[in-house]
Amino acid sequence: MATVSGQQGFQATFQATPHFSHMDEQMRRCIQECLSCFSVCEQTLAHCLKKGGKHAAADHVKLLMDCAESCRMSAALLSRESVFHLHQCATCAEICKACEESCEEFAGDAQMKACADACRSCAEACSTMAAMA
Amino acid sequence: MATVSGQQGFQATFQATPHFSHMDEQMRRCIQECLSCFSVCEQTLAHCLKKGGKHAAADHVKLLMDCAESCRMSAALLSRESVFHLHQCATCAEICKACEESCEEFAGDAQMKACADACRSCAEACSTMAAMA
Amino acid sequence: MATVSGQQGFQATFQATPHFSHMDEQMRRCIQECLSCFSVCEQTLAHCLKKGGKHAAADHVKLLMDCAESCRMSAALLSRESVFHLHQCATCAEICKACEESCEEFAGDAQMKACADACRSCAEACSTMAAMA
Amino acid sequence: MATVSGQQGFQATFQATPHFSHMDEQMRRCIQECLSCFSVCEQTLAHCLKKGGKHAAADHVKLLMDCAESCRMSAALLSRESVFHLHQCATCAEICKACEESCEEFAGDAQMKACADACRSCAEACSTMAAMA
Repeated sequence: MATVSGQQGFQATFQATPHFSHMDEQMRRCIQECLSCFSVCEQTLAHCLKKGGKHAAADHVKLLMDCAESCRMSAALLSRESVFHLHQCATCAEICKACEESCEEFAGDAQMKACADACRSCAEACSTMAAMA
Repeated sequence: MATVSGQQGFQATFQATPHFSHMDEQMRRCIQECLSCFSVCEQTLAHCLKKGGKHAAADHVKLLMDCAESCRMSAALLSRESVFHLHQCATCAEICKACEESCEEFAGDAQMKACADACRSCAEACSTMAAMA
Repeated sequence: MATVSGQQGFQATFQATPHFSHMDEQMRRCIQECLSCFSVCEQTLAHCLKKGGKHAAADHVKLLMDCAESCRMSAALLSRESVFHLHQCATCAEICKACEESCEEFAGDAQMKACADACRSCAEACSTMAAMA
Repeated sequence: MATVSGQQGFQATFQATPHFSHMDEQMRRCIQECLSCFSVCEQTLAHCLKKGGKHAAADHVKLLMDCAESCRMSAALLSRESVFHLHQCATCAEICKACEESCEEFAGDAQMKACADACRSCAEACSTMAAMA
């Protein structure tokens, strides 16, 4: 299927990177979680702004923006193995947790559930990284 | 294996996003290419700075920085379905092509080859998107 | 006054940069316009989300996000004299113009007027830069 | 003079923002320090890559990249009054201090001195903000 082949392409590119292959599994997983959470938060931003009402509440939308921004900064620092990547992961875990909680308040909205899942999964990966400090 | 399960987790999160599921395959693939190319360019930045010499030439390193930055901006605009996403994809395709060419000049360096591949693949996905304008 | 001394500090830091001092006035002004427009758009995002209603319409908020993101990318590329800075300025001018028009539809809202002014001024500076290509 | 009028334009735009005018002086100064430090670090990146040698050492260049990225994230979160702005300022102060120390090792290089000054000034403003938590 097209979808699967598209994602195999993604994986193939990602795994083929020699510099990346020396990274331990934890770091690799954390980068992928951050990239995924970054994109999912941006998708959810569009969803929330379109829905309006409670979905577009300032505090909620700003959390989604903070989470997207923090995740992409974490992905960058992890990828280039910055000396501050553990520090940044600790901050990112906090922001992801807050965003997860905010998304969980929307019962019955599949997009919000998916975003909460992505935030929770990213928070776990970032916490695990940060605990290595 | 740990690697596979980590990536299945990534795919699962990414595919489970309802907002994302309505996107056509081309847009989905383009986001993934941009996310991958963003991370690979950051990894390659670390590789080039560590190697020094020709690898750390100002023009080459700045292209890697531009490409990483452009790819993450494209990923953001595509994910939130910004009205400027096609415009941004056109710019991103140009930057990725230039970065690919710069990376191809390093024969026998597996990291540079992987980065050239990621840039070429991302340039193609972005060009395909931009052509829809 | 505190405000003035704070801003003199900003100017002093900015002007004292030797690398920056060789830049021509046009480039210097363009960086400042991009930095200013980036911050003003982020401020306006907070304002619009707090106001809700028409202010928080998806298309309008997403334009503010695009404009903030584009301006900070332009500021980065201009500052490091990237080979793509003129290309990026051309894109940024387009986005700033669209954001200006969107902000101008809110008559009698001083924040929106200030944002429209910042976008117009930044669009002019970016267009002037891009015309040097 | 052109330079001065350019900067007066910047100040005028910045000060005229109604949303911004309610901010206290400390926050306003911190945003300006972050914007300035972001641009100065990007300028210094170009300078260091051009000089090569010790200037282009991986650890030093990556600190400049981290500092630029952290400062622009701080400027964004402060500008939109994110709930995480104090948290981000604490992280940013750490990164700025590390970057300042790294820049101070280059005696007799005016660009490095200007960058160290910008980092020190930004670290102070961010620390002051973070202490309000």
